[in-house]
Amino acid sequence: MADVFCFPIRVYIEDTDAGGIVYHANHLKFCERARSEWLRANGIQHYLLQGGFAFVVHRLQAHYQQPAKMDDLLLVSVEPIACTGATFRLRQRITRAEMPIAELEVVIACVNAQGKPCRVPPAIQALIFPTP
Amino acid sequence: MADVFCFPIRVYIEDTDAGGIVYHANHLKFCERARSEWLRANGIQHYLLQGGFAFVVHRLQAHYQQPAKMDDLLLVSVEPIACTGATFRLRQRITRAEMPIAELEVVIACVNAQGKPCRVPPAIQALIFPTP
Amino acid sequence: MADVFCFPIRVYIEDTDAGGIVYHANHLKFCERARSEWLRANGIQHYLLQGGFAFVVHRLQAHYQQPAKMDDLLLVSVEPIACTGATFRLRQRITRAEMPIAELEVVIACVNAQGKPCRVPPAIQALIFPTP
Amino acid sequence: MADVFCFPIRVYIEDTDAGGIVYHANHLKFCERARSEWLRANGIQHYLLQGGFAFVVHRLQAHYQQPAKMDDLLLVSVEPIACTGATFRLRQRITRAEMPIAELEVVIACVNAQGKPCRVPPAIQALIFPTP
Repeated sequence: MADVFCFPIRVYIEDTDAGGIVYHANHLKFCERARSEWLRANGIQHYLLQGGFAFVVHRLQAHYQQPAKMDDLLLVSVEPIACTGATFRLRQRITRAEMPIAELEVVIACVNAQGKPCRVPPAIQALIFPTP
Repeated sequence: MADVFCFPIRVYIEDTDAGGIVYHANHLKFCERARSEWLRANGIQHYLLQGGFAFVVHRLQAHYQQPAKMDDLLLVSVEPIACTGATFRLRQRITRAEMPIAELEVVIACVNAQGKPCRVPPAIQALIFPTP
Repeated sequence: MADVFCFPIRVYIEDTDAGGIVYHANHLKFCERARSEWLRANGIQHYLLQGGFAFVVHRLQAHYQQPAKMDDLLLVSVEPIACTGATFRLRQRITRAEMPIAELEVVIACVNAQGKPCRVPPAIQALIFPTP
Repeated sequence: MADVFCFPIRVYIEDTDAGGIVYHANHLKFCERARSEWLRANGIQHYLLQGGFAFVVHRLQAHYQQPAKMDDLLLVSVEPIACTGATFRLRQRITRAEMPIAELEVVIACVNAQGKPCRVPPAIQALIFPTP
């Protein structure tokens, strides 16, 4: 099974809201940054159909555990957990000094230039289930 | 059971991304705008502890059905589906001319000034389960 | 000279930051929403090259006068003040119950499908300097 | 005079719009991230009145020179250019491989816990005009 990839993200004031904590939708941005870096680290150019396909978020679940705050240095993980035809599923954890902040599960769909579902390309499949 | 509240939201270019569609995290913003208007329409001042409590998103699930685009006029619904002690659960649907765009389920936790869970106030309970 | 167009915008918690006020970059979003509605009210489809051209912000100046806050109902104006070749200049004021919140001056450049500067189309010129 | 501080910022899809470029208001976010890191690098805790004062953007000018795009690695500079009583002025340049993307001039006001203007603290003054 694939390794867990981790990416550090600093919280800036733009990420917070008047409640003094990170606005709940911004956790999704942090997770997408980590996914982008995970693909970049694996040499995969995926956005904007550079490779004839693109990824869109199809489903997600989020569990908010503790508030994140201004100036926090967060760690965001990417852990592939399944791949089936046109989609793959990732678990992503946001932590601060090992304290859990949020946990997400994200199902990504692969689409072609016409926006139609297409099979997850071999490079991504290999990333998700590396041959031993 | 409570009625379904609906609120119209226009898509601006700020909401879109380079894929030409509404960025997936912005659907959560649209849903929170609709929740704010639902509470406002019911006379509930809830933010920033004006009433001694605040709401935070505790869990959510999102299913993205169709992309929303620049200039779309969306309709966002708020439908209470459960209320248990310190949390309540809402279903929210985003549609464009009756086409489903996304469906969310959001669990909101009620917290006091110290950020500790507290019982959902009667005014909110009454809104969720109106006496017949 | 053209009339001043006004558009109401409600402040939601997504617009605020941990300082308890609207984050300074969001005033630019509010101004662009008002510009989009000004063009829409005048029957101009401008985005994404639907008419063979697009607008990009070329320069702007902002003066922040008073903080805007959660739940505020703001009014955002659009007032054309000049049009020269490939650009036009607008003044935009953000107010709350006539109290000035911010004042911006924005220079918009007109570009063609290749991203090159092009002459402001007659429909826009006519909007900016209506024939008496 | 003070040195020029530089901070790298990666462009993610959240930063782009349907025009395929970085949304114009996001340049202001990038500049504020760089200012936060400039202060952090100099040991100054400034946000949220940790030191009895806070900074707010009072005025800004932006000149957009070239579009930034998805995946770009930008460099954002912070260069203090003046300090007068309750405000200080910074020049900030955004570049990509030495190509100018945008240039901003930002006037920051120092406010106390009541939101009233107050004198720029000595630690900040020293940062802006280091004793030779």
